[in-house]
Amino acid sequence: MNISALLTSAGINTAVCVGLFSLYSVLRKQPSLVGVYFGQKLSQSKSRCEDPFWFGRLIPSASWIVKAWEASEDELYAIGGVDAVVFLRAVVFSIRVFTVAAIVCLFLVLPLNYFGKEMDHKEFPDEQLIVFTIGNVEEGSRWLWAHCLALYIITCCACILLYFEYKNITKMRLTHITASHSYPSHFTVIVRAIPWVQEESYNETLTKFFTDFYSSSYLSHQMIHHSGTVQKLMSDAEKMYKILKSTHKEQYCGTRLMRCGFCGGTATSFKMLSDERASARRETCSESDGLDERKKECGAALVFFRTRYAALVASEALQSTNPMSWVTDSAPEPCDVFWSNLCVPYRLLWIRKIAVIVALVFFVTFFLFPVVFTQSLVHLDKLTKIFPFMKKLAKRKIMAQLLSGYLPSVVFIIFLYIVPPLMMLFSTLEGAISRSGRKRSTCIKVMYFVIWNVFFANILTEAAIDHYQVSITKLVDAKHIPNLLAKAVPATATFFMTYVLTSGWASLSVELIQPFPLLCNLFYRFILRNKDDSSYAYTFPYHTEVPRVLLFGLLGFTCSILAPLILPFLLVYFVLAFLVYRNQIINVYVTEYESGGLYWPIVHNTTIFSLVLTQIIALGVFGLKESPVSLAFTFPLIICTLLFHQYCRHRFNPVFRKIPAKVAIEMDREDEQYGRVEDIHQKLQSAYCQFRSKALNLHTSGEQNNTESSSVTVSVGTERGDASRFEDVDEITPGKIIVLD
Amino acid sequence: MNISALLTSAGINTAVCVGLFSLYSVLRKQPSLVGVYFGQKLSQSKSRCEDPFWFGRLIPSASWIVKAWEASEDELYAIGGVDAVVFLRAVVFSIRVFTVAAIVCLFLVLPLNYFGKEMDHKEFPDEQLIVFTIGNVEEGSRWLWAHCLALYIITCCACILLYFEYKNITKMRLTHITASHSYPSHFTVIVRAIPWVQEESYNETLTKFFTDFYSSSYLSHQMIHHSGTVQKLMSDAEKMYKILKSTHKEQYCGTRLMRCGFCGGTATSFKMLSDERASARRETCSESDGLDERKKECGAALVFFRTRYAALVASEALQSTNPMSWVTDSAPEPCDVFWSNLCVPYRLLWIRKIAVIVALVFFVTFFLFPVVFTQSLVHLDKLTKIFPFMKKLAKRKIMAQLLSGYLPSVVFIIFLYIVPPLMMLFSTLEGAISRSGRKRSTCIKVMYFVIWNVFFANILTEAAIDHYQVSITKLVDAKHIPNLLAKAVPATATFFMTYVLTSGWASLSVELIQPFPLLCNLFYRFILRNKDDSSYAYTFPYHTEVPRVLLFGLLGFTCSILAPLILPFLLVYFVLAFLVYRNQIINVYVTEYESGGLYWPIVHNTTIFSLVLTQIIALGVFGLKESPVSLAFTFPLIICTLLFHQYCRHRFNPVFRKIPAKVAIEMDREDEQYGRVEDIHQKLQSAYCQFRSKALNLHTSGEQNNTESSSVTVSVGTERGDASRFEDVDEITPGKIIVLD
Repeated sequence: MNISALLTSAGINTAVCVGLFSLYSVLRKQPSLVGVYFGQKLSQSKSRCEDPFWFGRLIPSASWIVKAWEASEDELYAIGGVDAVVFLRAVVFSIRVFTVAAIVCLFLVLPLNYFGKEMDHKEFPDEQLIVFTIGNVEEGSRWLWAHCLALYIITCCACILLYFEYKNITKMRLTHITASHSYPSHFTVIVRAIPWVQEESYNETLTKFFTDFYSSSYLSHQMIHHSGTVQKLMSDAEKMYKILKSTHKEQYCGTRLMRCGFCGGTATSFKMLSDERASARRETCSESDGLDERKKECGAALVFFRTRYAALVASEALQSTNPMSWVTDSAPEPCDVFWSNLCVPYRLLWIRKIAVIVALVFFVTFFLFPVVFTQSLVHLDKLTKIFPFMKKLAKRKIMAQLLSGYLPSVVFIIFLYIVPPLMMLFSTLEGAISRSGRKRSTCIKVMYFVIWNVFFANILTEAAIDHYQVSITKLVDAKHIPNLLAKAVPATATFFMTYVLTSGWASLSVELIQPFPLLCNLFYRFILRNKDDSSYAYTFPYHTEVPRVLLFGLLGFTCSILAPLILPFLLVYFVLAFLVYRNQIINVYVTEYESGGLYWPIVHNTTIFSLVLTQIIALGVFGLKESPVSLAFTFPLIICTLLFHQYCRHRFNPVFRKIPAKVAIEMDREDEQYGRVEDIHQKLQSAYCQFRSKALNLHTSGEQNNTESSSVTVSVGTERGDASRFEDVDEITPGKIIVLD
Repeated sequence: MNISALLTSAGINTAVCVGLFSLYSVLRKQPSLVGVYFGQKLSQSKSRCEDPFWFGRLIPSASWIVKAWEASEDELYAIGGVDAVVFLRAVVFSIRVFTVAAIVCLFLVLPLNYFGKEMDHKEFPDEQLIVFTIGNVEEGSRWLWAHCLALYIITCCACILLYFEYKNITKMRLTHITASHSYPSHFTVIVRAIPWVQEESYNETLTKFFTDFYSSSYLSHQMIHHSGTVQKLMSDAEKMYKILKSTHKEQYCGTRLMRCGFCGGTATSFKMLSDERASARRETCSESDGLDERKKECGAALVFFRTRYAALVASEALQSTNPMSWVTDSAPEPCDVFWSNLCVPYRLLWIRKIAVIVALVFFVTFFLFPVVFTQSLVHLDKLTKIFPFMKKLAKRKIMAQLLSGYLPSVVFIIFLYIVPPLMMLFSTLEGAISRSGRKRSTCIKVMYFVIWNVFFANILTEAAIDHYQVSITKLVDAKHIPNLLAKAVPATATFFMTYVLTSGWASLSVELIQPFPLLCNLFYRFILRNKDDSSYAYTFPYHTEVPRVLLFGLLGFTCSILAPLILPFLLVYFVLAFLVYRNQIINVYVTEYESGGLYWPIVHNTTIFSLVLTQIIALGVFGLKESPVSLAFTFPLIICTLLFHQYCRHRFNPVFRKIPAKVAIEMDREDEQYGRVEDIHQKLQSAYCQFRSKALNLHTSGEQNNTESSSVTVSVGTERGDASRFEDVDEITPGKIIVLD
């Protein structure tokens, strides 16, 4: 690949980006699409302005960029919670580090690479990209100390920034914990694996145990029920009903021709049924001890304690002499609980986890095959030797440039789209008890996947193709890995550059346009002819975006001193990401639940991994280039980086695993001082409700159906009763916004 | 090596064993050696019978075997604590498993191996040992299912036994915890990394913190003091003084010629000094808050709580928002505390741990070189090709048999003797806060060392010598490991057999004879002419014996189906070990501290490792022997073994890490019921004393010096004050028995 091919790719992507950004700035002004682009705003404001048509609606503008830029961190915290701030901090960290890296590498390393060998340079557009990489530096060159110096500067800079970020985020997490005095999760412990005693219900066993051993601090409890088959059927029916209802409810169908068979006279029967069910549900919810035959108690419960400290202590202790019974965990917030997994018998969890790990390993490994094929497209010249029929294609220049510069990445991205849902499924099976925990676990899985399949697989296939023999055993040999990486990374840098352009830039535009919700919206309005504005809001997809940002970080670090030409493209990506994600957090995604900054340890660990990998690759390169001094200087750098990591792990990480006792005790004291205790205890009783959210949605819909009211903005805040006040963060979701993970 | 060489080796070792066992049975009857062979008995009984000379003293007898056999587990528990019982259980487990393995392998596998190939068998004594291994089975043999079946039987048997052992030992551990209501450690928490506040002593900071946050459960505390240089000098002086004193104190020196310069007139001045110091020490100990200028407070303390549960909770919680300050840990028993490590600044511990790990890895790796040389001695025929001067040696038959059958192991054992002290040093540097924890950590380190340097190194050198080229890179290649092991293990089995004979059988005799204390005793009595009977008692060396027993287990498992001839020798070893260790626990070693069964998880994990390794080697063997069916059947076995391990880890292991809350609460209640609370709280105040033990020893010696009393049996039980009642287990150590680790 030469400069002109790269510029072609960059040109296409810039055009795509500008086009899509402009399209976005137009689309976001359309009132009918407000549900797609302003889910967050919609969920907070109670009314929606019905703009008349005005000409400005069709003119692209950059106002959203200004707004995204101007939002302060406090606003972002208020809207997106700690997680959003942490995510944006990761982006800002990348911008800072790669600004330094770009300055150092473009002005120090790049010239050395370019003039590394005595050779006749071609004209600039025809110059091969490999000339800009370290591959062009002569063996034994006396200029390699510059690369080593650059590595030192980048590592030090990254470590210093990481340290302060970790420190700040730890502080932010603690502030977040102490910020509100009414999180019910602080008083709640999830108890699983309640032992089965003959002639006693779980309820009685639990009551006995906690009144016996925690008599002073135990407040009350709430059993978890099997949702069962009936429950599942019902929830399916509910979903179906909602779709049909809204289809049926159109009072002035534009074209009667489009009315489908669904819009029959059966709506009333649906309505009546649902009403009965809704009221029945409400009863069972309010008197949760009532023995509803459809629901069976399972060996799990939420136990409420009088103080935060008592709950904290109970959640951390080993309760019984059999570690497989009376398992306690700190509870997630009411909106965050992943109810269906609470019923999974605890004794199966360990085997589920193992099964998921095995499945994950298999999946990640066998995903390699499409990657091999994709990567081989970059090497058209080499491929044509193997597949002669491709020669014709390769001859047509534009086609060739498209094939080698653009197609591989596109194929890739399509493949990559199926990964997050699958990983989410894995995390569900693994038994996560909170939605945020499930997303975090998915994030880690996607990270493994992405780093292995995008980074390593590409490098390994590159190495394999380069040697014309795919001998996996040779690739896996431990001793050769640094050398192998040292050879392959500069060669693969070309692909990574196009990857940054396509997967990076383009994916940001896609993120902005939100094609899937847009299509859904259009489908609802034009195919189903649904004038009802009920919209689906999404929570922020940390499980795909965190790995993406970190992958680009990895690419940046590893390529920085080897092929510095990637850095400007990366910087552009990170700046765009900064703007786009801020905009999305402010406008699009709702925050139903959050992990309280638990994504930062992932970011930190991955960055350290990237740094150490970069250093190991540099080791290999210095070895190949016969520069013993640089080689010797790189070793202490690796050791220092690992020591720094260990220090941070000891210094900050425990706060991300446990709540400090001091914090809990101080909060309890403040509650007592201000006389909030009784109030909190009362609210606690009704904070968690396993079957309410669906019932409520249905109930709201049912009511609307009865009164034939078309108002979209019925807030269920009051219907949620006392619980709503607990949900400082989660209160923002009115009835008609259905939040999806 | 052929059968006759093996029998030579076995003969020598049997002779040595019988000889040493007889010698032991004579030596143990000598009244002057009672301190060597009855340290435990001595520490318990208050008087010592001075037997007159009788003829039976010189006749070997087997009475000790009968006594060792007859001791019940309860007796052993009473004498040696949980750890001793756990260790013996590990031996019994090995006997059981290898009995089954021996029956299966000798009657099913051995004949198949022997008649595996159509060949002319030589006369029996000249038969090469390789004929009895799986190496003699033809490729593609249809009898390999028998090996697979044997593997299944051994694995199942081992897993079932492991499960029940783990279950019983868990129960035993819990019983041990609840057995005594007066362990001070249950009420105590070690606090480290107390933050330094300007113009406040650590003492005040600590008092503020705990009265503030644990006001209801905090009882009192005791600061830890730097021992400082003066302290060290003093303790050295004390040691010196004791040696001199006892040398000086001989009232009737047998031969004045032997009196050395030490026996001068300086004893009085020594005495006076020590007396002053002893009394000064006693004061500081009783009023531990008094500011002694020689002692500086360090940022650590023992904090006492009112209830066990409160202490448990405080030890497990994350106290402060900075995880590097206010670090809490559950405290060890008073006798178990490793005082000097408590003063190590907590912020240095993580880096110390890393340094120790690095040092360990280096040491374990570079120890390989003597091993390579030793192992090469077994292959005299091959060595002579490389070193022609050895031909002469090899020609003399007895010499050759000695060289190949005996010498390698002896060289080995000598090398191995330096390992445990070094590992103990590593564990000390690592910062263990209890003596039992330090020993346990040493045990794990020695285990790594032994498994790597005895098992793997021998196999790898075998493989390397076999291929006449030591290419480490090839050996390390991951994919070839099963094949490599499959080839090397049967070939190395010969060495392992001699290793069992020498290191196993002979080491047991050595253990019985106790050469080091015996020599010390003789040195004291005949060189230093010391008639004083003060004796040094040792605690049981779990850190060397547990790895040894487990190493033989590993050898047994891996060789079982490949070279079953090793099993009878192993069984003999385990039976002897059973008798010898029982005898030693009953008679020799004192129990000052114990870990409460924490050695069992080590035993369990190592056994599982051995099983899985055996299965992986079997995989390699079945692959080499082209038996796809057996190969296919071995895979699920590996998976099941690993799943079993995971299950046990979840089911039992947490109890070995934390004390269940239920247990603590129930014990607290019983205390209240029986009105013991006040009593316990009072005793708690004086239970721990940092500088007492030495002072007491000295004090006792000083007193004796004054009164010129030669009574050996002064019990310091009363001088220890109220603390003694706490030490149900540890009370057994009177003043004159100095316990060494």
